[in-house]
Parts: sequence; C-alpha cells; structure tokens
Amino acid sequence: MESEAIQAEKWFEGIVRGDRIQLGKALSLVESDRDDDRKMAVLLLEKCDAHVRSRKRSCRFAISGAPGVGKSTLLETLGIHIVEMGRTIGVLTIDPTSAMSQGSILGDKSRMSKLAVSSKAFIRSSAAGQVLGGMARRSMEMMLLLETAGYDIIFLETVGVGQSEHMAWQFTDGFILVIQPGGGDELQGMKRGITELTDILVINKADGALAPLARMAKAQFETALHYFSPLRSNWEAKVVTCSAIEGTGIPDLYQTIQSFEENLNAGDIVITRNRQQNMWLHWSLELLAKKLVMQHPVITQKLETVKAKLQESNGSPFRAEYEIEHLMKSLIFPPDDSKNK
Amino acid sequence: MESEAIQAEKWFEGIVRGDRIQLGKALSLVESDRDDDRKMAVLLLEKCDAHVRSRKRSCRFAISGAPGVGKSTLLETLGIHIVEMGRTIGVLTIDPTSAMSQGSILGDKSRMSKLAVSSKAFIRSSAAGQVLGGMARRSMEMMLLLETAGYDIIFLETVGVGQSEHMAWQFTDGFILVIQPGGGDELQGMKRGITELTDILVINKADGALAPLARMAKAQFETALHYFSPLRSNWEAKVVTCSAIEGTGIPDLYQTIQSFEENLNAGDIVITRNRQQNMWLHWSLELLAKKLVMQHPVITQKLETVKAKLQESNGSPFRAEYEIEHLMKSLIFPPDDSKNK
Repeated sequence: MESEAIQAEKWFEGIVRGDRIQLGKALSLVESDRDDDRKMAVLLLEKCDAHVRSRKRSCRFAISGAPGVGKSTLLETLGIHIVEMGRTIGVLTIDPTSAMSQGSILGDKSRMSKLAVSSKAFIRSSAAGQVLGGMARRSMEMMLLLETAGYDIIFLETVGVGQSEHMAWQFTDGFILVIQPGGGDELQGMKRGITELTDILVINKADGALAPLARMAKAQFETALHYFSPLRSNWEAKVVTCSAIEGTGIPDLYQTIQSFEENLNAGDIVITRNRQQNMWLHWSLELLAKKLVMQHPVITQKLETVKAKLQESNGSPFRAEYEIEHLMKSLIFPPDDSKNK
Repeated sequence: MESEAIQAEKWFEGIVRGDRIQLGKALSLVESDRDDDRKMAVLLLEKCDAHVRSRKRSCRFAISGAPGVGKSTLLETLGIHIVEMGRTIGVLTIDPTSAMSQGSILGDKSRMSKLAVSSKAFIRSSAAGQVLGGMARRSMEMMLLLETAGYDIIFLETVGVGQSEHMAWQFTDGFILVIQPGGGDELQGMKRGITELTDILVINKADGALAPLARMAKAQFETALHYFSPLRSNWEAKVVTCSAIEGTGIPDLYQTIQSFEENLNAGDIVITRNRQQNMWLHWSLELLAKKLVMQHPVITQKLETVKAKLQESNGSPFRAEYEIEHLMKSLIFPPDDSKNK
C-alpha cells in the first residue's frame, strides 16, 4: 500500500504541475473498472479533493442540447474566446463514435481541432459505452482532476434526454442549454422539462435567415422564464443568442458565464460541493448495488428464462418477481438469515 | 402448498363474483411485505392475470395534478357520472394523512363520500408510506385485482413530481393531467415536462371568475399541444374544461375518456399489457436489488459512519464509494469468488 501511496503522490504532483500527459493518464485511471486501478484512483482522488478545498474552485457547467444544435462548434468558439481572455478551460464530452474503446483518443479533439491544440484548454472524450445517466459514469471524478489541474471553467457535455439532465444538474454548478431557433424547436426545450434547470439558455445559429427567428425565440423565452421560479436561489436564468460559426454573441455569452462565476464564488462553495458529493455518493452506490445484483449470473440466467416465458404469454410477471426476489435474498443474506425473515 | 392453492382459488372466485370484502382483503394482501402474504399474493395474481387475458380489459388511467387543483372532487363528480352511465369504476389513490398505517381504511373514501357508497365504484387508498415512484408500490397488482373484479375504468392517482409521472405513464393506458386556470399555473404543467405524456388535459375549476381564464388556457394548450408529437402513436392529446363542483363539462370529459377507450380496444391490448408488465418487472426488480443491498445492516452502518465524516469535511466520498463497493461485493459474491474478480 505504501508504494501505491508514493505513486499516487507522483501522479498528483504531475497533475498540479500541469503535466498534460499525466492528467490524461489520470482521467483514464478513474474511468477504469480494474480493481488495482480503482485502488490507485481512490488514493489520487483523495489527494485532489483535499487540494482543491483550499483553493479557488473551478466553475463547473453542464452543457446540454439536442443533437444538431451545434454544441461542439459552440464549445470550440466559446473555448477559444475564453482562452483569449487569459482563462483556462476543461471540456468533458461523450464520443458517440466510440462505444467500444475504453478511452477515446481522437473523438472530440477532431470536432474541436483548434481548441484542442491550445495549451490553456484540455478536451477529453469518454467512450459512449461509459455513459450512465447522460454523463460519463465517472464525470464527477474527471471534473475533480481538471479542477486539480487548475482549469478555471469546466464544461461537462450531457447526452440523452429526460432524467439525464437532472443528474448533470445535480452534479454541476451551472446548467447551460443550447437550442437553435425555428421550427418550433424552441419549445423542445420545454418539452424535456429542463427549462426549470437552465441557468443560461443559449440560442445558437443566430445567423443568416435564422437571425430574426433567434431574436423572436429570445423574446419568447425571456417572457417564459419569468414563469419559472429559478431552482438555484441566487441566479435568474439568462437568455443569450449567438452564432458559433460567425462568432457573434460569444463575448456576451462569456460575460454571462463570468457573472455566473462571480455569483458562485460569492456563495458558499463548500456547502455546494459537499451537497454535490453527497448526491453523487448515493447515486453511485445505488448504481453499484443495482448492477452487482442485476448482473449476478444467477439473476441474469433466471431473468432470461422468465422473459422467454412472458413472451409466450406463458407465465406471470408476478411469480417471476417473487422468485427472483427470493434468489436475490438468498444471494445477499446468508441462507440461515433468510429463513428467519 | 396445495392448501394455499385452494385458498387462492377461493379468493379469486370471491373477487370475480364481486365480493367487495374479498377484493378489499386482496388489495391489502398484495400490499403486504410479509413472506406468507407474498406467497399467497403471487398465487392469486397468477390466476387474475390468466383470467383477464381472455376478457375485455379495463381501461387504466393515471391521473396527475398539483395539490389543490381538485383531483378528488373531480374523481368524485366524474366517477358518479360514469356510474350513472351504467359503467363501473375503480379508483386507486394515495392517502397523504396515513404515512403510518398499512392499509388506509377511511382516507379518500371520506374525500369521495358519495362515490364511495356506490355499488358500481370501488375506492382504495394506499398509505403514503407505500409510495415509490409517485404511485403505490403495488399499483400494478392493485389494478389487476380491480380489472379481475370487472371494473371498466380504473383511475390511478399519482403523487409527487418529476420522474413519478413517467413511471405512472409507463404502467397505464392513458394519462390524465388536471390543472386549474389562472396565476400562470397553466405553465406549471409544462414545467414538469409532463405535457408530452398527457393524453387528456383537464382544466378544472372552470367556474365563476375563473371560467374565462379556463377558456383562455384551453385555447393556449390546444395550440401548444400541436408542438408536441404525441407519445402514444394512435391518440392526439385532447383538452377539456370542466367544473367538478358545478358538474359542468363532466359529460364532455367522459366522452373523451370513452373515445380513448375505443381507441385502446382497437389497438393490440395484449402487446400493450405485455410491455407494461415487462417494464414493471424490471422496475420492481431494480427496486428490490437496490433496497436489499442499500438496507443491508452492514451497508447502512458503514454509510452512516461515512456521512458523519463527510459532514466534518474529514474524508473523501471517493474512498467511501470504494470501500462500500467492496463491502457490497463481499456480500453478493462468495469470498472466494470475489478474490478472483
């Protein structure tokens, strides 16, 4: 264990020093499910957690939006602007093309090629296979590593719809929703029930023929947002129009982000982070519990048999539930114990 | 086991015969967590499941709405109208006052006193302590019992917000959302992201000073609903205004319910029910898995210690997760097995 502690210390120092290769390795480490990796990861994360507590924290944003609204282009243009303003940013994305590979090497770096070469930005794609609840399974750990490396602003891209946004919202400081104008698409945001989560609504593609539609959507949303009591007590949702391709509106968006940051720092970040970590711990443990039980060979085999029967309308789901419940109990409680229950 | 089978047969026959006392007992039985009750419940539910498959099915509605919109009054007025039309209805509600007691005896029967005395209606309240995912834990089983007893239309009242509506939507045939006009409350429905789930939107309290507001809300929603692609492919959402207190609009609402029923019967109900049962089985098993593990004394004790430490900012959630994961593994996998993993 001691040599592991020394190794973790070296990893940690590398990250704090700004060693990008070390940071990249550490991001892979925390995503690994191998037991020896998990051991090292915990030692490293403990150090990081203690380190960031005594420093100015990063501002962590979830960034959400339907496919095709231009999230990657926006992240690239916005990222470059932020870097030009002398700040540093970390971007965590999901690579939809690499459901298989463990760590995605190129992925979003090719989608954000200009930002990727900046020394003040760090982009990391997780393989889509690692996604749970609309984020990478280890997003919380990855944000902590980026924060340890000193990145000022962190963007966590979400995928999917529904519950996933709520999850990402719980684990981050701010929630950015990207939409595009026209085609009734403005209402799509409402449809997903995420308007109430949104701290900054970005109407992208406000260029060419879509520009007037974007202005209309902005007015519409500014009215609509009045009806929603903000879920973060000290922030009122803002609407920004921009064109990631033309670069217009990006300084506005950055200013909005900056005022969100100032607001965050004015509050009690320790309480905020503790709350996030508590929710994360529960979420993570429930996932583990569910996974360990539902993926146990005894359970999966039984479930397969049961489903085949149900398909033939030859058996009831109620008996199936009862039988599998008993299987679960006999797994989790020693045989003697379960008899007494 | 044989005498249990005979007993289950008696219960089943009682329910089919229309014995209300037997039905009441059966509803308590399926809500019980006692192992001998569970055994009997499964035998009974199997019979019910086989029975209803060969008959005209009930139409099962989830009914949702914020507190104060008049759901109980609406259910009473609508229920009486349905009974007067010669139909029978079953109502499953959650009694907010009885978090403690197992079965709630009076509860919503006192809220729906006129309907409660009708021989063509059956009202059952579950204790709030039994609620999971916005419904009673055993709603699916309870609906099956009411269907076995031959009730034509079943209303399942949901409580809470967010995910719960989606759950109730998955397990029922139709989704009714009740709102009241005025105060920007119309938008509250959208806020919850449930507009896309809604098959019938009921604007209640369309009386007195609120009547013009109700008409406005109706027009507004009829426009808005055009933007939402319906999640049930063969039904387009309808908006109905009514006053449960004055009784106006209730025949309209019943007609809408009737056309939903016709629509349902025109589709393949077997496929619908199989899908509902499959989703229910997965949901139920995941709940069981999570509960069995998270409530295991070894886990709860550890989690308490860990949380106390986190509160003092004295410890990292990452180590906590790692340690509890190992505890879980040692519980679920035999010690020899877990060494090899």
